[in-house]
Amino acid sequence: MNHNDLPALLEQWRSGQLTVADFDAAMREHYATTAVVDGALIDLDRVRRCGFPEVVYGAGKSPDQVLQIFMAQEQAGQASLVTRATNEQADVITSRFPDAVHNAVARTIRRGLAQPSGSSGRIAVLTAGSTDRPVAEEAVETARWMGCDVRLITDVGVAGPQRLIDRRHEFADMDAVVVVAGMEGALPSVVGGWIDCPVVGVPTSVGYGAQLQGLAPLLSMLNSCAANVCVVNIDSGFKGGYFAGLIARRRVSS
Amino acid sequence: MNHNDLPALLEQWRSGQLTVADFDAAMREHYATTAVVDGALIDLDRVRRCGFPEVVYGAGKSPDQVLQIFMAQEQAGQASLVTRATNEQADVITSRFPDAVHNAVARTIRRGLAQPSGSSGRIAVLTAGSTDRPVAEEAVETARWMGCDVRLITDVGVAGPQRLIDRRHEFADMDAVVVVAGMEGALPSVVGGWIDCPVVGVPTSVGYGAQLQGLAPLLSMLNSCAANVCVVNIDSGFKGGYFAGLIARRRVSS
Amino acid sequence: MNHNDLPALLEQWRSGQLTVADFDAAMREHYATTAVVDGALIDLDRVRRCGFPEVVYGAGKSPDQVLQIFMAQEQAGQASLVTRATNEQADVITSRFPDAVHNAVARTIRRGLAQPSGSSGRIAVLTAGSTDRPVAEEAVETARWMGCDVRLITDVGVAGPQRLIDRRHEFADMDAVVVVAGMEGALPSVVGGWIDCPVVGVPTSVGYGAQLQGLAPLLSMLNSCAANVCVVNIDSGFKGGYFAGLIARRRVSS
Amino acid sequence: MNHNDLPALLEQWRSGQLTVADFDAAMREHYATTAVVDGALIDLDRVRRCGFPEVVYGAGKSPDQVLQIFMAQEQAGQASLVTRATNEQADVITSRFPDAVHNAVARTIRRGLAQPSGSSGRIAVLTAGSTDRPVAEEAVETARWMGCDVRLITDVGVAGPQRLIDRRHEFADMDAVVVVAGMEGALPSVVGGWIDCPVVGVPTSVGYGAQLQGLAPLLSMLNSCAANVCVVNIDSGFKGGYFAGLIARRRVSS
Amino acid sequence: MNHNDLPALLEQWRSGQLTVADFDAAMREHYATTAVVDGALIDLDRVRRCGFPEVVYGAGKSPDQVLQIFMAQEQAGQASLVTRATNEQADVITSRFPDAVHNAVARTIRRGLAQPSGSSGRIAVLTAGSTDRPVAEEAVETARWMGCDVRLITDVGVAGPQRLIDRRHEFADMDAVVVVAGMEGALPSVVGGWIDCPVVGVPTSVGYGAQLQGLAPLLSMLNSCAANVCVVNIDSGFKGGYFAGLIARRRVSS
Amino acid sequence: MNHNDLPALLEQWRSGQLTVADFDAAMREHYATTAVVDGALIDLDRVRRCGFPEVVYGAGKSPDQVLQIFMAQEQAGQASLVTRATNEQADVITSRFPDAVHNAVARTIRRGLAQPSGSSGRIAVLTAGSTDRPVAEEAVETARWMGCDVRLITDVGVAGPQRLIDRRHEFADMDAVVVVAGMEGALPSVVGGWIDCPVVGVPTSVGYGAQLQGLAPLLSMLNSCAANVCVVNIDSGFKGGYFAGLIARRRVSS
Amino acid sequence: MNHNDLPALLEQWRSGQLTVADFDAAMREHYATTAVVDGALIDLDRVRRCGFPEVVYGAGKSPDQVLQIFMAQEQAGQASLVTRATNEQADVITSRFPDAVHNAVARTIRRGLAQPSGSSGRIAVLTAGSTDRPVAEEAVETARWMGCDVRLITDVGVAGPQRLIDRRHEFADMDAVVVVAGMEGALPSVVGGWIDCPVVGVPTSVGYGAQLQGLAPLLSMLNSCAANVCVVNIDSGFKGGYFAGLIARRRVSS
Amino acid sequence: MNHNDLPALLEQWRSGQLTVADFDAAMREHYATTAVVDGALIDLDRVRRCGFPEVVYGAGKSPDQVLQIFMAQEQAGQASLVTRATNEQADVITSRFPDAVHNAVARTIRRGLAQPSGSSGRIAVLTAGSTDRPVAEEAVETARWMGCDVRLITDVGVAGPQRLIDRRHEFADMDAVVVVAGMEGALPSVVGGWIDCPVVGVPTSVGYGAQLQGLAPLLSMLNSCAANVCVVNIDSGFKGGYFAGLIARRRVSS
Repeated sequence: MNHNDLPALLEQWRSGQLTVADFDAAMREHYATTAVVDGALIDLDRVRRCGFPEVVYGAGKSPDQVLQIFMAQEQAGQASLVTRATNEQADVITSRFPDAVHNAVARTIRRGLAQPSGSSGRIAVLTAGSTDRPVAEEAVETARWMGCDVRLITDVGVAGPQRLIDRRHEFADMDAVVVVAGMEGALPSVVGGWIDCPVVGVPTSVGYGAQLQGLAPLLSMLNSCAANVCVVNIDSGFKGGYFAGLIARRRVSS
Repeated sequence: MNHNDLPALLEQWRSGQLTVADFDAAMREHYATTAVVDGALIDLDRVRRCGFPEVVYGAGKSPDQVLQIFMAQEQAGQASLVTRATNEQADVITSRFPDAVHNAVARTIRRGLAQPSGSSGRIAVLTAGSTDRPVAEEAVETARWMGCDVRLITDVGVAGPQRLIDRRHEFADMDAVVVVAGMEGALPSVVGGWIDCPVVGVPTSVGYGAQLQGLAPLLSMLNSCAANVCVVNIDSGFKGGYFAGLIARRRVSS
Repeated sequence: MNHNDLPALLEQWRSGQLTVADFDAAMREHYATTAVVDGALIDLDRVRRCGFPEVVYGAGKSPDQVLQIFMAQEQAGQASLVTRATNEQADVITSRFPDAVHNAVARTIRRGLAQPSGSSGRIAVLTAGSTDRPVAEEAVETARWMGCDVRLITDVGVAGPQRLIDRRHEFADMDAVVVVAGMEGALPSVVGGWIDCPVVGVPTSVGYGAQLQGLAPLLSMLNSCAANVCVVNIDSGFKGGYFAGLIARRRVSS
Repeated sequence: MNHNDLPALLEQWRSGQLTVADFDAAMREHYATTAVVDGALIDLDRVRRCGFPEVVYGAGKSPDQVLQIFMAQEQAGQASLVTRATNEQADVITSRFPDAVHNAVARTIRRGLAQPSGSSGRIAVLTAGSTDRPVAEEAVETARWMGCDVRLITDVGVAGPQRLIDRRHEFADMDAVVVVAGMEGALPSVVGGWIDCPVVGVPTSVGYGAQLQGLAPLLSMLNSCAANVCVVNIDSGFKGGYFAGLIARRRVSS
Repeated sequence: MNHNDLPALLEQWRSGQLTVADFDAAMREHYATTAVVDGALIDLDRVRRCGFPEVVYGAGKSPDQVLQIFMAQEQAGQASLVTRATNEQADVITSRFPDAVHNAVARTIRRGLAQPSGSSGRIAVLTAGSTDRPVAEEAVETARWMGCDVRLITDVGVAGPQRLIDRRHEFADMDAVVVVAGMEGALPSVVGGWIDCPVVGVPTSVGYGAQLQGLAPLLSMLNSCAANVCVVNIDSGFKGGYFAGLIARRRVSS
Repeated sequence: MNHNDLPALLEQWRSGQLTVADFDAAMREHYATTAVVDGALIDLDRVRRCGFPEVVYGAGKSPDQVLQIFMAQEQAGQASLVTRATNEQADVITSRFPDAVHNAVARTIRRGLAQPSGSSGRIAVLTAGSTDRPVAEEAVETARWMGCDVRLITDVGVAGPQRLIDRRHEFADMDAVVVVAGMEGALPSVVGGWIDCPVVGVPTSVGYGAQLQGLAPLLSMLNSCAANVCVVNIDSGFKGGYFAGLIARRRVSS
Repeated sequence: MNHNDLPALLEQWRSGQLTVADFDAAMREHYATTAVVDGALIDLDRVRRCGFPEVVYGAGKSPDQVLQIFMAQEQAGQASLVTRATNEQADVITSRFPDAVHNAVARTIRRGLAQPSGSSGRIAVLTAGSTDRPVAEEAVETARWMGCDVRLITDVGVAGPQRLIDRRHEFADMDAVVVVAGMEGALPSVVGGWIDCPVVGVPTSVGYGAQLQGLAPLLSMLNSCAANVCVVNIDSGFKGGYFAGLIARRRVSS
Repeated sequence: MNHNDLPALLEQWRSGQLTVADFDAAMREHYATTAVVDGALIDLDRVRRCGFPEVVYGAGKSPDQVLQIFMAQEQAGQASLVTRATNEQADVITSRFPDAVHNAVARTIRRGLAQPSGSSGRIAVLTAGSTDRPVAEEAVETARWMGCDVRLITDVGVAGPQRLIDRRHEFADMDAVVVVAGMEGALPSVVGGWIDCPVVGVPTSVGYGAQLQGLAPLLSMLNSCAANVCVVNIDSGFKGGYFAGLIARRRVSS
């Protein structure tokens, strides 16, 4: 059973052909749900439930632990993504999996999902300033791993308003836009006022004292006067990219 | 020029056939950008930029002001939505526009967008408890106004976990899910773990002392271990519904 | 001795012709420093030290108390300004001083400073949305009382970015600009990016839950990426207008 | 006099056979209340008042100081527990007391209470993710030191909901359950909804920016919609295990 | 199947005689899980999962809604408890159910659980000052509803330390102690230092400015130097009493 | 076109001789808006819009990157200022541009604006204590770079009130005063009470625990009872100096 | 035994003539420790322990309850003080005790301590602005009840610095000074810089948005650069007056 | 003129024999107000205004800077105290001034005030736990420097309540008591309930997560139900000792 079987099973449940217990049993049968890697549990069932494999948080893991997770996911026919990856982890992974992509600025290692033709939608990732770049790159890598066509547009913060205006055509007809901003976090609101697609705001912890390690732009984005702006956690480029990827994928799957 | 002309104009700009100045001029020419109603400015240009008309915040406005805004938007061929509407406003609007829909629990008045056939995607709105209902209804009304097919599923909070499990089939294959929760705000994380579509968390200010008027569930949702959860402002059913509506609309437009 | 004598006295002190004790004595001699009005002390010396008379906070004062303060200030040849004024106070003041100006939206009563010719500089006051208006009007009235030429520009929030762009010529060559904004408070940063004069940000307590009664825009403005933005207290239209008035007055006095 | 004599003495006080002064005197007589170890005071009376010996906070103490405390407690016939212990302390203790148990992940050293037969109740300790493990191990070690039968169940966070459901039988009939969770801290609420025994929530400081070093899950647990959830301090595995141990001991002692 | 069948079913699951699906099915079969009362869902399954019926939050419900919930619970053979009850609700309930107990200070209505003989353990509820009383009474009523023998000890705050000392015999050998305190919330720590049973701290919102509506005692209790103190939400007498009731019930059931 | 042409262009726009599109085109034509230096964008258009060149935040940049920015700005005929500069950056810059000024306490490198004759107004920078000095020096350097005549007055905190009083003549007739203070941040309020010019408060993160890394003086300055006090971000000597420089420049330009 | 016997008893304890148990027994014998008034406990022992009778918090008490407390304290030969008193309570008390003093601004009723000759030290109470007056009056009444000679000095806030300087002689040689201030709370620091006696800061909740109901001046006073400033709770005129009274009493008793 | 002349001068001012200007001049004449030491200003006038010399904050100063300050104060006949002193500073000072006292735990160096006979009152400094000791020692050293007779009583936290009770005679008749406590900060309230003299609470930053670097005990102490408790800043042993020293000195000077 693959991901595409889910609608059929749901329909059977709805129509009474399956009880909830039978539905759950069918789900369990088709999937090895958990791999145990060096004491850590890897949720191999997540593809079924959520559409994408479990993503690995690299900080604090040994290169060998990360490698074994990649191998367990490969064995299950699944792709892999590590965030907050170290260079040591990258060396070990890329020598074993030459097709793995390491981005040192983003601190990610990814090994692609099968995507024979076409892409899963288009995404733009914008940054206010150059210090927001590592978070933005993490968003870019995550969305690319999900199969999206991603464009990175940097340094269009509101202190230089004409820069954003002159580049509107580069992000005006995306499926989703991720906006990464520290300081006062005004950029998602301004971007949201120019376009008609969902905007995912990612506040960063970049700034002076009253920036409060990202709380200032977080609050700013939550209170955005633009209705098409939602927010994820501070410095969470991964979540920004992932959420945008889920939105963008919609267009393709329909 | 209507909303569908935008891609062509953008293409001309990109290919150099239009300068940015000419592009802006073309934009301005085709739209009366602003109506002045009783001292307030109505942004009639928002449909072009953002895909939907300006939404009116009803609190503090007289029934007559709201009526004039509806009339200005009708004149421009645009739909209308009022949030935080009073019963007095509803009486005036519905007697002038019998097709307007008033929802007293949601405190909304809406007058539909033209949608000749089909819908703009499917959305589920879930609540943790019964006190979260007004916020959820505001989300429902907003998404319906945008043309979505919306299902409201109430009282599936985590204190009764089997209730959510037994109703998974009702929200498992939506385009987007809005989850409205007060108290500790755990529901979006739990829902996010079961499904593969984007989840928009709406924290509510429902709870005892340390709930801090919604800050507790807001923080909870921002830190969700489920990667498919984003967040909008406390008690902002409108934003939750609007954002989900934008996501859902994708499927249809492609 | 009037305000213009101060530089001469300072020079004498610097050159050793006056000791600090003599300087203080000279200051005291020429001014009746304090009037006692119904138990409250009015600082009539403030004109000398700070350039403008003491401003009266009206909330909690009886109409008669306010009247007596106006009379005491008139007797000392000084102008008067009441903020947070009630309609009852306004009735009493304007029937005694027909030249007093009452602004019910701003909740101010002012009686002008002597300004024989010309004005004390030009100021623009901008608002993001219509709910910010009372705070903006307080700023307008305060700056007018100080002799400034003030222009009020409303509803140019970032959700409708073209509105601000199309009206830049109205605030591009002011001496100072006051920007009043609630929600996420992004407007001062955006305005600051377009112009070269000082911008005084006034956060307002307008918004939903996570706006935190104005803390969100306050933090936003403090962290502005535009270097020409400073901040005053939440909802403090008076301080915004006063500070801008002090800046604008510079141009004239030189 | 040992701990079991307390009820008799209390009864005498209640019935008037003992005055409060006599009661206090009787208490004092039978216990050497305080040992002085290298300038620090060890409360040897705590067993009488609270049922367990004083627990030592190891951070900042020299190995020799810790050793002397163990020896003083041994002399008084009391068990010992050190939290936040270093490896250096462990080396010194275990070479002198070979029966002492060192857990390097938990950073604890314990030397058991006398427990000839049976145990003091059953406890499960659950973690949401693998980074919560050190705090969970501290809880495990503390409860074991108190004589409880403890089961550790890891990695059952809400992002993989089926994992918790499939393992309910492992924690469904415990005397108390400790739930250790960082991120949004939703797990105690979900666990509380499945079982009928007390749940002690231990928030951890694991997470991104808006997790606020554990404040987010702390607030989440305090606002739990499950009525059987209480909370202890952030990262306080010791308190979580101790409190659960006190609850579990009840069953045995009755 | 009643609550006592659960251990047998769990054993069958553990031994492999039941799959998790069969276990869940067995659970569902024996219980009507949900009653629908006037649009609200009542979780009749909670007795099975959690040992006690769902408790009703009275605020915002009509007397008739509350009555229907009582009737649905009676029909299922379950007891009832309403917190934050109004006098109007109490009048309706007590005229229909003369055995229902209304406590106007606690704002509770309860209708007892079947308890043929003996009680479910002993609990003391202590208050620091007289303003803490309504919260304490809510705790008392909740624990009594659960079948506990409850003693209320008032006004033993630390400003009069001899009062607590002289009354130690009244709470020294309880199964659990609930301590309700506002101001600085020091009482749970002091009580925790005198006794050996679990202490449940309930902070109240009683106090001056920097008490921050209960945050000061909440933080105080979370940081208690006494290891036997846990905490529930501000002003949550219900949760304090419920949690203590769960602990106390242990002794009886074993 | 230079900065002085702006008023003429604005006038043409106002009078209808220029459309907004033509105005924007005229702006773009005359300025190379952006230089790309080693991946970072330098906004060379900022002089036109804001009156001063873009200021470079040195932290995290290599000496070579900073050097290239200086060279790009020199090529455009613009001055340069680096804040948070390192000694390594200073060595490289000053060997290439001997006229550059490095201040190691302020951590700034500046290369002057053309200022053939006279200055751009007078500014005083005051500090409360000696630990506030680095922030104050940053303000001094920034204002000097803008062409102002700046006087630094140190150690006049309110614990020694006579020191401020005895030195009033040194700051009594400035165009603007910057007050840098940590601890309780009372100094701007006290200074504001003595003088008639704008006071820019800069809170610093100097102090013990409840100083909260500068939040205490930040709040203090925002609530100043002196109406002539505005505030910039914590430790932001640059912004304090820049804002004061903008105010002071007014006098000269008129 | 009266308050003066305490030193002798302490000496006997120290010298071994009394055990701690005998000491406590002697304490108990001489005092009726608690009166029960309408369900509330009055701590009549407080005079012995703390030197002054228990003070009654009037809010929420009926006039009759307050009266009975006065009568119980009179019977024990003790004085009485009610804070947050209502006019109704005052009417009842003063008609029964004509020597009771009601201050409607302070909301206090006091009935004096026996003080045959002389006073218990001198105290000044200063306010920054007129809105701080009710809190200041509460401090005045409390200190007068304790037998102090109290002077109230109003409206000497730092916006008018010469007012404080010119009145230094009125508070320069007090035993203690209470400073009541809202807004930014700078006054205690400034006063502390001028004098050599202890200063008790009382922050008030007077101000605009970022004053945060008194948190701004509270933090300001805690961080005072003057070493002779301590702080009590927001709006707590009672505690400010009481603490100053304890300090002032010292001089007299020695 | 020495400190004792102040009352006479104040009397002359009050009686009109001196103007405020003459009074200030007399003050200035008799004191060299400021010494300049290596760029830092030392306020030698503080003895006159505040009764004690300026205290030096050692952190960040070179040993030589500290030495020069000692020498400048010696030359003016003044004592010296350094807080946050380093061992290097101590070596330099004590080799030049053998009578200087260095306390490495307290991180203080003091050189005594002249105190020919008797002491300036008695003070007790109490700590809750051993980690509070450095802060307590700073208080002890400061008060000793002021001439007080100081007793340090450690480890009497509320987790072992009998320890405090058994040692009451050691602090029951002091002039002032300083209580240093981290964790929940309950000790000052408990101490305040036993004694009749002023209690100065010093919160420390000792504890787990929700202790918030001392904010928890700070709030606790501010909300103390004991009326004789005031508070100084977190970890500020110096201020606690200084304030207590000012109180204690009263008794002696009268």
